[in-house]
Amino acid sequence: MRQNLRNKTNMKYYHKDIRIRYAETDQMGVCYYGNYFVWFEVSRTEYFRELGFPYTEYEKKGIFLPVGEAYCRYHKSLKYDDLITVTVWISKLKRTSMQFSYIITKKGEKEPVAEGHTTHVFVNRDMKPCRIPEEIRKNITVVEGVK
Amino acid sequence: MRQNLRNKTNMKYYHKDIRIRYAETDQMGVCYYGNYFVWFEVSRTEYFRELGFPYTEYEKKGIFLPVGEAYCRYHKSLKYDDLITVTVWISKLKRTSMQFSYIITKKGEKEPVAEGHTTHVFVNRDMKPCRIPEEIRKNITVVEGVK
Amino acid sequence: MRQNLRNKTNMKYYHKDIRIRYAETDQMGVCYYGNYFVWFEVSRTEYFRELGFPYTEYEKKGIFLPVGEAYCRYHKSLKYDDLITVTVWISKLKRTSMQFSYIITKKGEKEPVAEGHTTHVFVNRDMKPCRIPEEIRKNITVVEGVK
Amino acid sequence: MRQNLRNKTNMKYYHKDIRIRYAETDQMGVCYYGNYFVWFEVSRTEYFRELGFPYTEYEKKGIFLPVGEAYCRYHKSLKYDDLITVTVWISKLKRTSMQFSYIITKKGEKEPVAEGHTTHVFVNRDMKPCRIPEEIRKNITVVEGVK
Repeated sequence: MRQNLRNKTNMKYYHKDIRIRYAETDQMGVCYYGNYFVWFEVSRTEYFRELGFPYTEYEKKGIFLPVGEAYCRYHKSLKYDDLITVTVWISKLKRTSMQFSYIITKKGEKEPVAEGHTTHVFVNRDMKPCRIPEEIRKNITVVEGVK
Repeated sequence: MRQNLRNKTNMKYYHKDIRIRYAETDQMGVCYYGNYFVWFEVSRTEYFRELGFPYTEYEKKGIFLPVGEAYCRYHKSLKYDDLITVTVWISKLKRTSMQFSYIITKKGEKEPVAEGHTTHVFVNRDMKPCRIPEEIRKNITVVEGVK
Repeated sequence: MRQNLRNKTNMKYYHKDIRIRYAETDQMGVCYYGNYFVWFEVSRTEYFRELGFPYTEYEKKGIFLPVGEAYCRYHKSLKYDDLITVTVWISKLKRTSMQFSYIITKKGEKEPVAEGHTTHVFVNRDMKPCRIPEEIRKNITVVEGVK
Repeated sequence: MRQNLRNKTNMKYYHKDIRIRYAETDQMGVCYYGNYFVWFEVSRTEYFRELGFPYTEYEKKGIFLPVGEAYCRYHKSLKYDDLITVTVWISKLKRTSMQFSYIITKKGEKEPVAEGHTTHVFVNRDMKPCRIPEEIRKNITVVEGVK
């Protein structure tokens, strides 16, 4: 497995651009609040790929990362066709769990429109907690996140 | 299995009431067109349960019903908090496939707001087509559906 | 408006049963984490209806309740066709904002499978904060919620 | 308006790449059938942008394109993290309505995994049918589509 890892030691942040879909709006004319958690997931997927260990590989090896906790704070609304940037990083790393933090801005802007975090437990096929694989752990740099 | 089947021979139609969720609206102020296919699925679930053979039982037995074709015609728009009735029935039945048809009305009204159909192939865990179990087939009455 | 209010003074909790949809599952075989926030919304809708002031009425009067914060803690997974009960109540009430809290159990069971909260700001059509209408405020009993 | 139109006369096909999200899978381990209609919408958005007249501009001008009919045929299943290409084009154009057709392939492959169409009526804010603006019509080349 190690040889498949691109040399991404000390990766800190990943920035994922997402275009807001019509399906993601609601009748208030803005994006429905539950969809932010989908964008969080999309940016996690790209974080893991960039780290050299795509999430599809985890599940093939029998490692799953169910969500233990999810939080989002909404500062400003988002609209259809807005182009956003989700900045994602790992803000906690324990023996069997990790926390991702997220800041959403409109692309090219600095002011956050939303921020949040999700915690994940590493489990095997029987949903028992297991240790985070060393090949992943050693490539991760933890940065303090959104509380 | 046969003894688990409630005596629903010749069931024709099932009527499922669904309350429209805020999440299902879009910025046009009406329900997003893709969600109608979710309500179709919800009504299929209830059709199978009423037939005496819940869909959860199919998958436990290694029978799956992926969708081969889906169609919807939209006559009138639906809004948040509308209470709709999905009338669902089986409109075709072959050796390894079946078709469901659907009419959506506002509850208590006769005018259809949408109608459609979905076709399904019976497959095993290897996604190979398989025959529809006799216990199901014999309880089904086919009624001509939405073209 | 007052005369439309059913006499629900001091309503504390509302219990909303929801059947899990196939669309709400993911390839882990359980419910996707973002959908819990949809069920929270469905239970808020029923809470307001039960209080005698359906949310559709708010928007007609030019009052909107965008979400300021959303949180969910996941204890156990949920599966397709599970029947859940969302218990919802108001856990904070300020001049221009309120917090809902939620506990999800499988119907008839006591152990929570998830719990969370959402905060909402009352705003007018220009998205400026406005006071919670007195007709609503006086019917609400606040109960301490999920932290 | 005309001066805003980039010179895209006779545009025929647009190809939109989409990465499948975890949220879009279901417990069968493949993509939920209703989500294909979301990808259709995403590719329509990009078609209109490429044509020089983004859909956001339509709604600002009081023109809406509700869906009249939607159809999809599913040939093969799609999985989480698959990268797909949606090829989209206009397959019918009438005075007040149009039809889009779609073919989905895995990126770089030729075999369709799904194909379909949607019809749209041009309406004004009162949901009355209206003519397709000439600036749009003249830039469109119609190609026969998926029946």
